[in-house]
Amino acid sequence: MEELSQEFLTTVIQPRPHHSHKGTFGRSVLIGGNETYGGAIIMSAEACLKSGSGLTSVITAEKNHAALHARLPEAMVLDWVLTQEFNDLVDTADVLLIGPGLGLSAHSEQLLETVLQRQKPEQWLVLDGSAITLFAQNHYALPYPEQVVFTPHQMEWTRLSGLKIGEQTFENNQAMQKQLGATIILKSHRTELYMQNVQYKNPLGTPAMATGGMGDTLAGMITGFLAQFKDKEGAICAAVYLHSLIGEELGKENYVVLPTEISKNLPHYMKRFERLKNKTEEK
Amino acid sequence: MEELSQEFLTTVIQPRPHHSHKGTFGRSVLIGGNETYGGAIIMSAEACLKSGSGLTSVITAEKNHAALHARLPEAMVLDWVLTQEFNDLVDTADVLLIGPGLGLSAHSEQLLETVLQRQKPEQWLVLDGSAITLFAQNHYALPYPEQVVFTPHQMEWTRLSGLKIGEQTFENNQAMQKQLGATIILKSHRTELYMQNVQYKNPLGTPAMATGGMGDTLAGMITGFLAQFKDKEGAICAAVYLHSLIGEELGKENYVVLPTEISKNLPHYMKRFERLKNKTEEK
Amino acid sequence: MEELSQEFLTTVIQPRPHHSHKGTFGRSVLIGGNETYGGAIIMSAEACLKSGSGLTSVITAEKNHAALHARLPEAMVLDWVLTQEFNDLVDTADVLLIGPGLGLSAHSEQLLETVLQRQKPEQWLVLDGSAITLFAQNHYALPYPEQVVFTPHQMEWTRLSGLKIGEQTFENNQAMQKQLGATIILKSHRTELYMQNVQYKNPLGTPAMATGGMGDTLAGMITGFLAQFKDKEGAICAAVYLHSLIGEELGKENYVVLPTEISKNLPHYMKRFERLKNKTEEK
Amino acid sequence: MEELSQEFLTTVIQPRPHHSHKGTFGRSVLIGGNETYGGAIIMSAEACLKSGSGLTSVITAEKNHAALHARLPEAMVLDWVLTQEFNDLVDTADVLLIGPGLGLSAHSEQLLETVLQRQKPEQWLVLDGSAITLFAQNHYALPYPEQVVFTPHQMEWTRLSGLKIGEQTFENNQAMQKQLGATIILKSHRTELYMQNVQYKNPLGTPAMATGGMGDTLAGMITGFLAQFKDKEGAICAAVYLHSLIGEELGKENYVVLPTEISKNLPHYMKRFERLKNKTEEK
Repeated sequence: MEELSQEFLTTVIQPRPHHSHKGTFGRSVLIGGNETYGGAIIMSAEACLKSGSGLTSVITAEKNHAALHARLPEAMVLDWVLTQEFNDLVDTADVLLIGPGLGLSAHSEQLLETVLQRQKPEQWLVLDGSAITLFAQNHYALPYPEQVVFTPHQMEWTRLSGLKIGEQTFENNQAMQKQLGATIILKSHRTELYMQNVQYKNPLGTPAMATGGMGDTLAGMITGFLAQFKDKEGAICAAVYLHSLIGEELGKENYVVLPTEISKNLPHYMKRFERLKNKTEEK
Repeated sequence: MEELSQEFLTTVIQPRPHHSHKGTFGRSVLIGGNETYGGAIIMSAEACLKSGSGLTSVITAEKNHAALHARLPEAMVLDWVLTQEFNDLVDTADVLLIGPGLGLSAHSEQLLETVLQRQKPEQWLVLDGSAITLFAQNHYALPYPEQVVFTPHQMEWTRLSGLKIGEQTFENNQAMQKQLGATIILKSHRTELYMQNVQYKNPLGTPAMATGGMGDTLAGMITGFLAQFKDKEGAICAAVYLHSLIGEELGKENYVVLPTEISKNLPHYMKRFERLKNKTEEK
Repeated sequence: MEELSQEFLTTVIQPRPHHSHKGTFGRSVLIGGNETYGGAIIMSAEACLKSGSGLTSVITAEKNHAALHARLPEAMVLDWVLTQEFNDLVDTADVLLIGPGLGLSAHSEQLLETVLQRQKPEQWLVLDGSAITLFAQNHYALPYPEQVVFTPHQMEWTRLSGLKIGEQTFENNQAMQKQLGATIILKSHRTELYMQNVQYKNPLGTPAMATGGMGDTLAGMITGFLAQFKDKEGAICAAVYLHSLIGEELGKENYVVLPTEISKNLPHYMKRFERLKNKTEEK
Repeated sequence: MEELSQEFLTTVIQPRPHHSHKGTFGRSVLIGGNETYGGAIIMSAEACLKSGSGLTSVITAEKNHAALHARLPEAMVLDWVLTQEFNDLVDTADVLLIGPGLGLSAHSEQLLETVLQRQKPEQWLVLDGSAITLFAQNHYALPYPEQVVFTPHQMEWTRLSGLKIGEQTFENNQAMQKQLGATIILKSHRTELYMQNVQYKNPLGTPAMATGGMGDTLAGMITGFLAQFKDKEGAICAAVYLHSLIGEELGKENYVVLPTEISKNLPHYMKRFERLKNKTEEK
């Protein structure tokens, strides 16, 4: 199992093309945030926007709209009822994220089903949090598994794979990834990535990051990276690595690192690695 | 086609007169922000206020008021229903901006029609975003075209001018500007300005600015500059140039520049160019 | 007419007594902020709290509560309906401020009347903005004029005093102050203070401060200073002077100074002048 | 009576274990914030989260949710009606805090009763503000007094203990603590801690901290410290000492220290003391 390294950042985070506009960097549509867990989708949106997604829309319970706009006027919002507008917005997405703060209600289930049914072959789909639990409970099929990313922590992976935590060995996890056909980001203090033909281990991460919302932030970063970068496997690897790298850096000065602090630092860190790449090449 | 330059900033951004009060720097009234795109008008308001408009009022869907006040208590708010209060507020404006997050509903159309009907000869009117699309669809007439600014991106310009993107040459654009009689700010990675007797090209801009909300921020800056500066053509040019200049500067340290970061930096950058002017004159 | 000076700051802003608690620094109750001008009372509350009032409560239209709490969880809120709770809260105040964003409705009038009726001899009362206009329209009487501060700008002073702007000379203003019996803070680019036995002129102020909300911020500072400092005349003078001093300082680096920036800098500036006093004495 | 000292910080604030996740650092459930005092529970939540609680949920009046999320998307929210969801959330807690902004209504009383009835032997319970007053009025019994912390100021302690302020001597307070069986944090400008077998005095604290919300912030810190640190007595002592230490430090540059500024500085200060401990040991 290879280790992720800084090279993923310098390879993926390229100078942006000069003749570009917001559409060039992708449309992200994020679905989640019920009456109790609204903060989760707000944190995902923050990570998605600040990682450079061209356009970011959030479909969430209406009670979360004011807080989202107060923090992030850059995001667009839609109430999460199943209307034509919902379908239309889902259809425009380059990347869809569903799950942060979604909850396990019948309504959440309907939203997930609709998204799974509507996914088009060119769209990427990230499933996080309760979307993974609902997916596992209902034994849904994936129309385009190779365009899907699951981001379970170990208990969610148990639900999805049937593997108890003690059985989550490299071989078993790899076998389950093959069966599902999707990319698996298995989160723990040393996150593992099971991709189509390769597996990585993340060498970074600090216990200062062990606080609620870190996963929502990672899911938002993966979405933002998929939206704008062409090398999709590289984009996922870079997002996972950068999330931990910023956490470790901030953790040197902070006993606990809040997820929103990671997002706040994204534009600056991404620039640093874009520049590093250029400097290396100029030599 | 001339290029915009820093001289527009040092010429337009003058030391403020000592015997002045908030009325001296203009009343701006901003209209937009429906249930989904509330963030757009919040971003415009932020840019308008931080560029120095004396008084800034925002007419928007009520659900956006709390977020606007949480970010910007300096702005006044009014629900966007067509009441006497709406008319009265529109009448007090020195500059009107309509469009950011306005949407394309029948209600949005009514708001636009009302504003076009009420515009007085001394008022400036900026049309942005969906107001441009609605204007094009409905073939409205402009009572005072020489007091009107359109800020289309290329697709909106197609709708307004009938020119396909491939046909948007200098000559064709100029001809259409003559026909409309209004100022056209044609946004792209190198924005072009078609004014009554002169045309400019903006040499600045960075792909780090290619993110949702940049146009809303520019529209707010143009509004704020028109509200307070006497040389209206200069004000528009200065707003366009400064928007990109701040974006480029922030882009040196940030992979993506969020629109609200541009606004945050306005008071400081404007001071820099006021001072530069004074220094030059002192020599 | 004497000029305000830094000495007012070093005299008034004393080291706080060691054996103190939040009650020591006064209870401020602020009333204002209708459906349109909610931001005004939020700005007053921010200034009041950050100038050191021990407890700050805001009575405002309910739609403003979320924005106020998002910015200032330190403030308490009450809907501005005339209930027993309203009366009880007014009765607990050491200082009452009414007016910022109050509006001119019949309801606003009722609120003002209630406050004027309930004022107790030991309570200070600050009337700002539309409260001044309503007061002038209705020819109310003041039960304890020597405990009242009016903070009109020139047009509001015309309404209150009957003096046209051209007639607002030192002698006329002084005569009207004698007649009203209250303290008058006549705001302009060089604010004048008409107090019981003395008059001052504020030598500071910059056109960078000519933006909506500056008056609301000043009213909040006066309230906070009255709440905590024993020398009431000195407290008012210090608040007026410090408001302009911070504005001038920030104006050196900012083309426009937003009111909330003044409030943000209050704790730091007040400490500076507390320290300056101590240093001088130590010599 | 011993004095608290920096040693409590370096002893309690240990490097976090490498193999940890958010559950390792505890689940905190905070209950309070009625229609008027919503800010209180927001301040507690801020302190709890920023001191490193793994998961933080807030049960409060629904009108406070938007402001809470706008400031703190990391927190989860639940309306404070007595539903099954309420019970379920209370049952998951490692530490419960009830009281900040709770109010004295019949509903507040019901919430408190429910919490007292549901407390499990392994759960810690912090009672603050109006929860103390309600507890005193109703003569409730404590099922697990040794797992309970009261944080009264002197007037609340009068209600709880029956001791008038003049009678609150060391001996009397100690005797009342023995009778109650719970830990008492008696807040004043020199806070006293009455624990099972030991008593401490806090030598720190500055009058700059005498402003509304300081107690809510302290209660949130105690909750966050109890959630994550094993030595519970040490955790309480460390929270009290650090709260004042940060206040004193910020008070050197600020005439008044707002409670939310204390919370903002928590991650950085906690890291400082973790590091100090390590440095000392390395010698």
